[in-house]
Amino acid sequence: MAIIGLITDFGIQDEYVGLMKAVILGIDPDAVPVDLSHAVEPQNVVQAAFLLEASYRYFPPGSIHLIVVDPGVGTERAVLCLEANQQLFIAPDNGVLSLLMDPPGAVSSLRRVDNPALWRPRVSPTFHGRDIMAPAVAHLSKGMDARELGPELNPAEVRVLDDLHARRSGDGGIQGRIVHIDRFGNVITNIDLALLQLSKAFSPDRPPAIHLGGQRIVGVCRTYGDVEAGRPLALVGSRGYLEIAVRCGNAQRYFGVHQGDAVEVRPVG
Amino acid sequence: MAIIGLITDFGIQDEYVGLMKAVILGIDPDAVPVDLSHAVEPQNVVQAAFLLEASYRYFPPGSIHLIVVDPGVGTERAVLCLEANQQLFIAPDNGVLSLLMDPPGAVSSLRRVDNPALWRPRVSPTFHGRDIMAPAVAHLSKGMDARELGPELNPAEVRVLDDLHARRSGDGGIQGRIVHIDRFGNVITNIDLALLQLSKAFSPDRPPAIHLGGQRIVGVCRTYGDVEAGRPLALVGSRGYLEIAVRCGNAQRYFGVHQGDAVEVRPVG
Amino acid sequence: MAIIGLITDFGIQDEYVGLMKAVILGIDPDAVPVDLSHAVEPQNVVQAAFLLEASYRYFPPGSIHLIVVDPGVGTERAVLCLEANQQLFIAPDNGVLSLLMDPPGAVSSLRRVDNPALWRPRVSPTFHGRDIMAPAVAHLSKGMDARELGPELNPAEVRVLDDLHARRSGDGGIQGRIVHIDRFGNVITNIDLALLQLSKAFSPDRPPAIHLGGQRIVGVCRTYGDVEAGRPLALVGSRGYLEIAVRCGNAQRYFGVHQGDAVEVRPVG
Repeated sequence: MAIIGLITDFGIQDEYVGLMKAVILGIDPDAVPVDLSHAVEPQNVVQAAFLLEASYRYFPPGSIHLIVVDPGVGTERAVLCLEANQQLFIAPDNGVLSLLMDPPGAVSSLRRVDNPALWRPRVSPTFHGRDIMAPAVAHLSKGMDARELGPELNPAEVRVLDDLHARRSGDGGIQGRIVHIDRFGNVITNIDLALLQLSKAFSPDRPPAIHLGGQRIVGVCRTYGDVEAGRPLALVGSRGYLEIAVRCGNAQRYFGVHQGDAVEVRPVG
Repeated sequence: MAIIGLITDFGIQDEYVGLMKAVILGIDPDAVPVDLSHAVEPQNVVQAAFLLEASYRYFPPGSIHLIVVDPGVGTERAVLCLEANQQLFIAPDNGVLSLLMDPPGAVSSLRRVDNPALWRPRVSPTFHGRDIMAPAVAHLSKGMDARELGPELNPAEVRVLDDLHARRSGDGGIQGRIVHIDRFGNVITNIDLALLQLSKAFSPDRPPAIHLGGQRIVGVCRTYGDVEAGRPLALVGSRGYLEIAVRCGNAQRYFGVHQGDAVEVRPVG
Repeated sequence: MAIIGLITDFGIQDEYVGLMKAVILGIDPDAVPVDLSHAVEPQNVVQAAFLLEASYRYFPPGSIHLIVVDPGVGTERAVLCLEANQQLFIAPDNGVLSLLMDPPGAVSSLRRVDNPALWRPRVSPTFHGRDIMAPAVAHLSKGMDARELGPELNPAEVRVLDDLHARRSGDGGIQGRIVHIDRFGNVITNIDLALLQLSKAFSPDRPPAIHLGGQRIVGVCRTYGDVEAGRPLALVGSRGYLEIAVRCGNAQRYFGVHQGDAVEVRPVG
C-alpha cells in the first residue's frame, strides 16, 4: 500500500475526485489518498508543476502522486509514469512534471502508461483520471512493477516547460513571476532561495528590493512578525521560494497583482 | 470494513462532515470514508440523486453510501437503507434514491432505519446525519446485518421522484433538463446515452441539434479536442449523459443557463 | 494509531493541509486524519475555539486534535499539548484551547511542545503546523508518551480567553454573540442550552425573545419544520447552542448579521 498524493484542477464540488479515490480503493483498499489541492486554476499546468515540486518532498519514499491537470484529455497526448526521488508520478504529458526532471539525472525511470489491460472497461474520452490514471496508481500501490504500465521513454521525448524558473538579469538582479497566490493572499514566486543567496549583487549595504505591481519592498524578513500588522514584507516562504505577504492582511489586494505577473528583485540603488 | 461514499449538501466549511466521519470511525476504525461531494445545492434532492447514480458504480461491491440532503430533518420522514447493485445506501426518504430503485427489480432490500439502540445517546433534531445515519453506516461497515436497522419496507411505500428522466417528445426529439453544472462550467443533462442512441429521429443526414439558452449546437462530439478553443460542443460526458461544454471555456456562461433549465434535442430541420 | 481531527484556517485550495497529512502519515502510516474545518476565518481564534468545543466529543477516546490557527507563527508563542477528556490537543498558545480548560479541573496534563528532536529537519518560520506540530501529532499517534514532547506547564501559564461565554444580564436576560455562521446561513451563538434552561426569567407566560440585527424572534423551536418555509426561528442547534435559522432560507441574510455581532435573549415584555 502507498500514500497517494492528489493534485487536480477538478475542484471538489463535483464527484470527480471522489470517483478517482473510489477506483483506487476498489483495487487497493489499503491505499491512503491525500488531497494536496484540487483548486489548481483550470488547465494551469505551471501552477500545478510548482505545487507538486513544493509538496512531494514531504511524502515518504514509495509514495505515488497523481496529477490530473489535463487540457488535452481525449487527444493523442500520452500519460506518463515518472520515477524520481524514490517516488512515482502519474500525469499527462503536458509539462506538469518538468520541475522533477531537472536535472535530467533526477529521473530514475520514465514510462508511457498505455496498457489497456489495466484500464476501466469503458474509458470516457473526457475522464482519463478516473479510467486510466487511477487504476495505474492503484496497481502500483498494490505492488505491481511499473514496467507493466507501458514502454520506457527517453526524457527528451516528453514535453518539458523551460521557462519555469526565475532567471538572473544583466545587472545581477532576478526576473521572476507569481506562480501561486494562497488563501491568505500571500504571493508566491518562482524565485528560489538558492538564486537569492547566490546573487552577489546584494549585500548588507545593497539589500534586495522586490518590485511588483508598481511598488517595492526593501529587504527580506524571516517571518510575518518582523513587521507591524498591515505592513507588507518579503520572506522565504514555506515552499522555499520568495513570497510577498502583508502581516494580518492580504498581499494580493495590497499590491493588486495576479498569478503570472512579473516580480523583479534588484539591488537598492 | 467498508468504503463509505459521502454525498451531502453540508459544504465543508463547517464541522458537519467531519463529525459524521468521527462518529463512523469511532464505531468502525477501519472504515474508509470517501467524499463524493458536499456541494449539493442546499436541499436539492434531484441534483444529489443524479450525482449518486453517476458515482456508485465506481465503488467496489460491499460499499456503503451515506446521502444527507435532508430538508425534512427532524420531521416524521423516515430514514432508509436500500440494498441494490451489491451496495448499501442510507438516506432520508425524500426521493434521493429514486434512480437506484428503477426498475423496481433492482432493489435487493429496503428497510426503515429506526432502531434507537444504534443511535447516538442524544439525537439532535437538526442533525440526523451525525446521530442516526452515521452510526447505522458504521455498524453496517463493521459487519452488522442490515436487518438490525429496522423493518423491511415495500418500495411502493417510499417517496420516488418520477420526473427525473428526460423523455421523448412527439417529433422524435428529447426533452430534458440541466441537473448539474460542474466546476468547469460544463452543463450536465438528464439525457442519457441510451435515449440518444434509441431515437430513430437522428441520422447522419439529420444529426441532433441541442437547444439550450436560446441557442443550439448541431451534432455530438467525442471529446473537447474535437472543436477549437472557445467553441461550444455537445458530447456524452463522463457520467454517460449528454453534456454541453466549451473547449477551454465555460458553457454555463456561454449559454447563460442554470441548473433546472430545459434542454431539447431535435433533428436538424 | 489514532484518529486525528484537523482544524485550521488554511483553506483547502493550497497544499498546506495535505502537507501536514503527508508528514503525519510518513511517521505513522496508520493514522487516520479527519478534516473538521479548514475554513476558519484567517486568524479567528474564537471561531476555532467554539468549533473545537462543538466537535471533540464526537471523537473516540485516544483521538488527537491538531488546531492550526496561528497568527503568531514564527514568534515566541509556545506550542501546547493539552490532555483533556481522554483526548489530546496540539495547538499554538493563543487561547484556542480555552473552552477545554474550563473548569481547570478538566485538564489532565498540559505541556510545551519544544523537543527539536521531533521536528522536521528544517523548520520554516511560517509553517510550524507542518514542521513542528504535525510530527508531534504523528509520534503521539504512533504511541509515544506525551512527556517526550516537552516540559509540563501550569494552566495559569498559558493564554486563556475569558470573554468567550455568553453572560447573564441584570434583568435575567442573556448577552451573547455570534461565533459562527454556517453554509446554510444558520447563525450560531455562544449561548448554551444550560444558560437558557437555568434562567428563571423565562416561563410559558414570558417566553424568551431573541434579539439580533434589530429584529427579534419569540420562543425557541425544536426543529426547522416547526415553522413555515421562509420564516425565521430560534432553536438549540446541533452544537448544543442557541441558533437562529430561516426554514429553507438563510438567516444571515434575513437578519443582516455577521460573525461577532451581539445576540440578546430577554423575556418578552
